[in-house]
Amino acid sequence: MNHPENISHSQSDQLHIQTDVILQKVVDAWTELQAQQPLVHCITNSVAANYAANVLLAAGASPAMIDNPFEAESFASIAAALSINVGTPTSEQMQAMQISAQTVAAKNTPWVLDPVGYGPFLKWRSEMVDQLVLLNPTIIRGNASEISALAGNQVESKGVDSVASSHQVYLQAHALLNHCECAAISGESDFILSKELNHVIQINGGSFLQPKITATGCALGALIAAYSAVTTPTIAAISAHIHFAIAGQLAYEKASSVGSFNVAFLDEIYQMNTDRIWEYSDIQIFNL
Amino acid sequence: MNHPENISHSQSDQLHIQTDVILQKVVDAWTELQAQQPLVHCITNSVAANYAANVLLAAGASPAMIDNPFEAESFASIAAALSINVGTPTSEQMQAMQISAQTVAAKNTPWVLDPVGYGPFLKWRSEMVDQLVLLNPTIIRGNASEISALAGNQVESKGVDSVASSHQVYLQAHALLNHCECAAISGESDFILSKELNHVIQINGGSFLQPKITATGCALGALIAAYSAVTTPTIAAISAHIHFAIAGQLAYEKASSVGSFNVAFLDEIYQMNTDRIWEYSDIQIFNL
Amino acid sequence: MNHPENISHSQSDQLHIQTDVILQKVVDAWTELQAQQPLVHCITNSVAANYAANVLLAAGASPAMIDNPFEAESFASIAAALSINVGTPTSEQMQAMQISAQTVAAKNTPWVLDPVGYGPFLKWRSEMVDQLVLLNPTIIRGNASEISALAGNQVESKGVDSVASSHQVYLQAHALLNHCECAAISGESDFILSKELNHVIQINGGSFLQPKITATGCALGALIAAYSAVTTPTIAAISAHIHFAIAGQLAYEKASSVGSFNVAFLDEIYQMNTDRIWEYSDIQIFNL
Repeated sequence: MNHPENISHSQSDQLHIQTDVILQKVVDAWTELQAQQPLVHCITNSVAANYAANVLLAAGASPAMIDNPFEAESFASIAAALSINVGTPTSEQMQAMQISAQTVAAKNTPWVLDPVGYGPFLKWRSEMVDQLVLLNPTIIRGNASEISALAGNQVESKGVDSVASSHQVYLQAHALLNHCECAAISGESDFILSKELNHVIQINGGSFLQPKITATGCALGALIAAYSAVTTPTIAAISAHIHFAIAGQLAYEKASSVGSFNVAFLDEIYQMNTDRIWEYSDIQIFNL
Repeated sequence: MNHPENISHSQSDQLHIQTDVILQKVVDAWTELQAQQPLVHCITNSVAANYAANVLLAAGASPAMIDNPFEAESFASIAAALSINVGTPTSEQMQAMQISAQTVAAKNTPWVLDPVGYGPFLKWRSEMVDQLVLLNPTIIRGNASEISALAGNQVESKGVDSVASSHQVYLQAHALLNHCECAAISGESDFILSKELNHVIQINGGSFLQPKITATGCALGALIAAYSAVTTPTIAAISAHIHFAIAGQLAYEKASSVGSFNVAFLDEIYQMNTDRIWEYSDIQIFNL
Repeated sequence: MNHPENISHSQSDQLHIQTDVILQKVVDAWTELQAQQPLVHCITNSVAANYAANVLLAAGASPAMIDNPFEAESFASIAAALSINVGTPTSEQMQAMQISAQTVAAKNTPWVLDPVGYGPFLKWRSEMVDQLVLLNPTIIRGNASEISALAGNQVESKGVDSVASSHQVYLQAHALLNHCECAAISGESDFILSKELNHVIQINGGSFLQPKITATGCALGALIAAYSAVTTPTIAAISAHIHFAIAGQLAYEKASSVGSFNVAFLDEIYQMNTDRIWEYSDIQIFNL
């Protein structure tokens, strides 16, 4: 495990200790996810629906894709967590998102907001995201372009894909912590800004093939929601990103093209265990 | 093939004969499915759409996902069977379900109803299911929680997953035969209640990994519809469940994690043949 | 490479030269697709959404499934190409299709129309397709039944599957060139009618398993759109069909059942390169 170069030796020792503390919490969260199999209410897009459900089942959670406004309140009220993704919204899904978010916010049920495509060329969803942010999502996650834009910066994007690097923008996301406990940015490395820890956690691993599979980010958001049902927001975000990073790394050792990589990735999501978390996790901690 | 212990020897002989008769009809149904490649009109959910279509194509049928109300009547009128699944309904799909069901009911075209998530926390769809049941679906299929709830019992569920066991609830489903020819309950073992045979058929096999793959139940419902175009309702339900049970068992011999299991499962659905049906079918017959 | 028997020797020589010229343009188009990674605006069906996005990512493009009417104009205005597929239309998608098509038509952005299920039993979408055709799609692609029906012929279909052969109907599609630059018919062999070249290009290859995988045609339409962002309409259609034909052929060498074939197919879409295009392309050219 490499330590960031800009941290002094004494700080490094201190943070090294924190790293082990964090990884123990990740191990506990994974164990708890298997034990509780929390019911995760997902409102997601047509591209991700099947994939996100399979990722959640493989990881140990119990997903339910309930995206109509007529059942949103009653179902959100019994869910252990909620995941909202604005990838391909319909008018009915938009209503379901608002109702569900209000319901879980009132009950202090954890929820994740994934502002897919946030930016000037997709105004309808971006305005909905702005409204949802005011309801204080537990965790906001997205790619670098989306998170940076949502934090009020001028950024470029390419449709729903990021053109910014996660490394460049994570400090720009700081303002989002006024609205959430935790902001997570996925990219070549992932960055998690935590209000609870007052630190940034960088997570390395995964494979360059992951962005070549559609809906991996969407499934990651749903997995953060699943973990948030069994641990704190920060540990939930770290756990889900580590789960993905390890599965991506191990899958690439087995399969080097996108179709077979995708199959191996789901295999590895399912085959996670505590030993693998200790052996393969690669995280670094920075001061915010 | 094991016989249930609560059946006397003479009954057992009689039912053993029935078992061979049933398996011959299953073999004939599979053969007929390959020959006719029936057009199956599917109204299903966003999680299952791709998967159910691939399962039907692999099994030999010709699926068409037509789920808007403006084409529901004309398309249902030419389909060989209809499959309705209320997994992620929209207002337009709800209208399409009613129109399609009325159309096929009037034409005596066989149809399958899969009441995904039926219960008190998903009232909108449950009320639609209640209306559809009054149109007398040919076959109703679901997991133990859904079928038991639909039959009027107080049951628990966890979102769209069952917390009841199929073995516990199959007798509770008897009341559903007032509304359909056949009620099918999927679980660790599957149970099919038949008005035609006045018996319960238990189907063993499959893999514990199947519930870890999303939409397998939804695809099974669509496959029952496909078989119902070429045989009686009871044999259709038995054939589809045997098709799934054998494919699941053989897939698990090749692949032990969810991603690769899912690929192998589709392979085995496609590679079914009459020898495999005779060799691997594991059914038992009970008095109702 | 076989030459059609109805072409005289001198014609054959001339067309042989054209074949090499065309393949060089296909190689250039593939190379350009990797370099530009064009943003492709897709409005597609619920069965194809995930699959088409994965095919486009594997091929080198950047897909975005934006199918609501409220963002259709602004997003179509920045896309490099648009793909419209009427597989499972909703009222909102229908509006999005019209707005997007009008937007790209006004900007001369290339776009592809895939009239899934066109015919007398699916009138709602067929009327929308008729309106979209009047906006002059750059390329129209479909199976033999759809293309022949759209060209005004009486044809049979089976839901969304073709019962006509591409070889039988390609000459009937000639009238479509009044409305588009290029008409592409997929089948056992693919036929591309080009206004630019004033010829028909036949593309051989692929695997008999491709029609057993749902949404391959839909994904092919999206890939034509991706190529149309980097080359002429005719070369775009030829390139996408060759990309699919080679990937299908190579995938079948690795996997002979539908599940594993589908995985291998995506692998091969990703592993395309210029050597493979030269080695495996199998095209013939006819006079129109």
